[in-house]
Amino acid sequence: MISSNMRAPLRLIALLLSLYSSCQGLQFNDIDEVKFVNANSKYGSLWPLPQKVSLSDTSFKLSSASFRIVDAKESSAGPSCSLLQNAYRRYYKYMFGGSKTQWPGKSRPTEGAELGELQVWITSPDTDCDAYPSVTADESYELTVNQTYAVLKAPKVWGALHGLETFSQLVFKDEFGARTINATIISDFPRFAHRGILLDTSRHFLPIKVILANLETMAMNKFNVFHWHIVDDPSFPYLSKTFPQLSQKGAYHPYTHVYTPADVKMIIEFARLRGIRVIPEFDTPGHTLSWGGGQPDLLTPCYSGSSPSGTFGPVNPILNTTYDFMTQFFKEISTVFPDAYVHLGGDEVDFTCWKSNPDIQAFMKQQGFGEDFTKLESFYIQRLLEIVGQTNKGYMIWQEVFDNGVKLKPDTIIHVWKGNQQQYQNEMAEITSAGYHTLLSTPWYLNRISYGQDWHDHYKADPQDFQGTEKQKALVIGGEACLWGEYVDGTNLTPRLWPRASAVAERLWSAKEVTDVNDAYNRLSIHRCRMVERGIPAEPLFTSFCPHEYKGI
Amino acid sequence: MISSNMRAPLRLIALLLSLYSSCQGLQFNDIDEVKFVNANSKYGSLWPLPQKVSLSDTSFKLSSASFRIVDAKESSAGPSCSLLQNAYRRYYKYMFGGSKTQWPGKSRPTEGAELGELQVWITSPDTDCDAYPSVTADESYELTVNQTYAVLKAPKVWGALHGLETFSQLVFKDEFGARTINATIISDFPRFAHRGILLDTSRHFLPIKVILANLETMAMNKFNVFHWHIVDDPSFPYLSKTFPQLSQKGAYHPYTHVYTPADVKMIIEFARLRGIRVIPEFDTPGHTLSWGGGQPDLLTPCYSGSSPSGTFGPVNPILNTTYDFMTQFFKEISTVFPDAYVHLGGDEVDFTCWKSNPDIQAFMKQQGFGEDFTKLESFYIQRLLEIVGQTNKGYMIWQEVFDNGVKLKPDTIIHVWKGNQQQYQNEMAEITSAGYHTLLSTPWYLNRISYGQDWHDHYKADPQDFQGTEKQKALVIGGEACLWGEYVDGTNLTPRLWPRASAVAERLWSAKEVTDVNDAYNRLSIHRCRMVERGIPAEPLFTSFCPHEYKGI
Repeated sequence: MISSNMRAPLRLIALLLSLYSSCQGLQFNDIDEVKFVNANSKYGSLWPLPQKVSLSDTSFKLSSASFRIVDAKESSAGPSCSLLQNAYRRYYKYMFGGSKTQWPGKSRPTEGAELGELQVWITSPDTDCDAYPSVTADESYELTVNQTYAVLKAPKVWGALHGLETFSQLVFKDEFGARTINATIISDFPRFAHRGILLDTSRHFLPIKVILANLETMAMNKFNVFHWHIVDDPSFPYLSKTFPQLSQKGAYHPYTHVYTPADVKMIIEFARLRGIRVIPEFDTPGHTLSWGGGQPDLLTPCYSGSSPSGTFGPVNPILNTTYDFMTQFFKEISTVFPDAYVHLGGDEVDFTCWKSNPDIQAFMKQQGFGEDFTKLESFYIQRLLEIVGQTNKGYMIWQEVFDNGVKLKPDTIIHVWKGNQQQYQNEMAEITSAGYHTLLSTPWYLNRISYGQDWHDHYKADPQDFQGTEKQKALVIGGEACLWGEYVDGTNLTPRLWPRASAVAERLWSAKEVTDVNDAYNRLSIHRCRMVERGIPAEPLFTSFCPHEYKGI
Repeated sequence: MISSNMRAPLRLIALLLSLYSSCQGLQFNDIDEVKFVNANSKYGSLWPLPQKVSLSDTSFKLSSASFRIVDAKESSAGPSCSLLQNAYRRYYKYMFGGSKTQWPGKSRPTEGAELGELQVWITSPDTDCDAYPSVTADESYELTVNQTYAVLKAPKVWGALHGLETFSQLVFKDEFGARTINATIISDFPRFAHRGILLDTSRHFLPIKVILANLETMAMNKFNVFHWHIVDDPSFPYLSKTFPQLSQKGAYHPYTHVYTPADVKMIIEFARLRGIRVIPEFDTPGHTLSWGGGQPDLLTPCYSGSSPSGTFGPVNPILNTTYDFMTQFFKEISTVFPDAYVHLGGDEVDFTCWKSNPDIQAFMKQQGFGEDFTKLESFYIQRLLEIVGQTNKGYMIWQEVFDNGVKLKPDTIIHVWKGNQQQYQNEMAEITSAGYHTLLSTPWYLNRISYGQDWHDHYKADPQDFQGTEKQKALVIGGEACLWGEYVDGTNLTPRLWPRASAVAERLWSAKEVTDVNDAYNRLSIHRCRMVERGIPAEPLFTSFCPHEYKGI
């Protein structure tokens, strides 16, 4: 019932199958550096594409019984670096976990030598093993597979984690099912330092299991920031030690639909072990309806004529108690979340309720704001930024705060989410021309689904594609794919996010010139089957199949 | 970041919670018949809405330890009717399965009597217990809960299955978690006899587990036809006993991506036990690329100039071998699939290849078809229909076959799938004016996703909404929601289908006047949480939560 010529997809499928199940049909270049303009499927299933890859058709076999990932003798990280030890186990399972028990009757591979081990060599004296990742973290690595052992060199553990993922992507099964890897030299680093996913746990509560599965998948795609839009109008699932009433009254359910301090700690550590930062967003003064139940007087009472209507608007910016509360609240947040940044929101403030309230009106007059409520908004945000600044955190804010002319610390990161392409490009130009760091999300609202392969558009968007100097471009630290929560919860979030977010992952990691959609389709199709094999229900790009289909419902 | 007034949703959520977790806030009418014009949420979570419901605020408790579903003494079905015995177990688990182990310390409910059993009374001497459901099956039932036992009366087992589902939907937990049911009288039957779901196992192979889970969910929504679009261009997963080469060569993989005879048998029996017919579609002469590998000469060789290009087009209609093959093939199909109907497809035949082939050109000339390839198409279909007619099966076909003027048996069902609203309504008018039975799918292509609550449009479409006499309207036997397979497989099919298909379920089951979208939203939100509690990852309609969120990833 669908008009389409099925032959092209069939050819792709055939290619996919041959790539995935054997790779034997491919002619790899002899060790030979290749620039990634119009890269084609000779890069197999690498995703996101590394900065520099040299492939050879010399191959090695890997034995599940004897292959080991070990610390290199020269490495500054040793057995006490549990981050790496965990990662070794994780990637061993990814590479060999799917294999059936090995029965006796071992034979040497007739062709190709055996690759006995991968040596992981952390070169910097300070490994960052027990640190948290940061926006300035060194994520680079070098991977060499050209003798009977492979070497992964990285200044810090963060690069080693990415290199392990890349190594696991190089391993394929030959036509007899034997794990095989081609001789390869890779030198890699991210194009952008901030590569994030926003998940919204307010519109729907996301079970912890779902958050962890998505952190796991983020690591497979070299994302490094989990932007946790944790509370919003509909619910307040964050259990605050200082103000437990907030979730007691504001969560969908105070026991079953909350994130306890232990949950949050676990999520942060799970993310850290995968090189992922957790940046919480506590969006004010709008989007705060759920805060009101547990914190009386925090929200502005709206008026209907001369009497309160019983409904509430944004945070009340004219009371000292508001700022006392925010001081205590963000003091807690600054200790619970170790990242150097917190996202303070500041978007979409609706002035209707403020306008209706006589106390607010009087305050506006007293301050000489006239009828300009953006001045009141800026008044609030300014004080909030000072409060948060005192916790020694940097802050990120949505673009409206910049648009309204609020005075910002020089290290503020401005998050662009509005408008069409022309508008967001102008916004990026203005922000960087004012000297601020910026982050793009507008083209990557993955909640906005449409029929067909919408990942093409996500793939084509480029955060540095605006009118500006090289210096301005350098102020773009990356972007975030956002999956707002109106229509997603634990039932559908994961397949809706993956592999669509993978397109954003490659845009933010790989070289600017990596833009060939056909090549991307080939690699991404296999990458999605790999995610499926690792237990992640990543949805199909198009008519196709995976050697091992998803095992859930 | 999303502009919307969150208060209305919050109110809905509050309502939903009160409905779901206790229902105590509702004022039910005393036993009192209500016509379902502008039905409101007093009907709790009933989905699809029964034809006639009378509710009371008298309530009964159900004890998981002692509640039983039993055959009524007068029932013509007894313990040997395993269809019903299976259903009793299934619905007991749905109603009580989620409960924790009951610890000692039982107490009588202080309010309301106990409902000790549900008596299921099949009234017709011929219960249909061992039969297959059919388009003429009696699916009606009457349910009475107004004393210490409830009675479910149905002429046939099919009505009893629907009544069990309805009964399970009436049971809710009071505020202390006690299973409770209100006194209720329901008299119910479907508006349309054919209420189907089309799944496509060719573009992506669907694991059997996924098919079974969706049959299970279909039963929860009173769907009664699984239209199995089993093969198409991309792959041929049907393992034919007569022509095993078809899947050997045409499946994505001949061992892992096929449906064996045992699989097909199991799926048909699983469906039968839930009152669901399985109608296979073997679409010809187009959409047959995958048939070619295993059946040489079946497809038309396309020509490039004067020599074959190596590619193939639709089934070759000019060879006797084609019809010999179809005769044997459909003989097998008619025995493997017990349903009285088989779907023969007949859509979207591309004439390009036929036009290029000199043998076809010669045949056209010989037959006097001129340049009109629809005549050739009709020539093929006509012979196919005769072949299938001889197997004593009725057939369903896509609308093109009717549009092209092929001579059809009077009991043919014509399946409408094309055009905009105006066009499909005209088509329905023409088909019924010609005296044929028809089935609507155009507004229910659920593969075509868009952002937001698209179920509203699915809900509003009505298959009898076209210009025609009452007699014409009576020829509309129902409709089917279609989920074509380009973008779905086991990773995302289930949440994409449910609860969106539930909107179609209510349109096809409930009275024509049941059209209140707000009321539907209230009931459907709870119905979707019920599906989630039963283990089905049905996605959310909007910002909300379920008391028990989905337990998968």
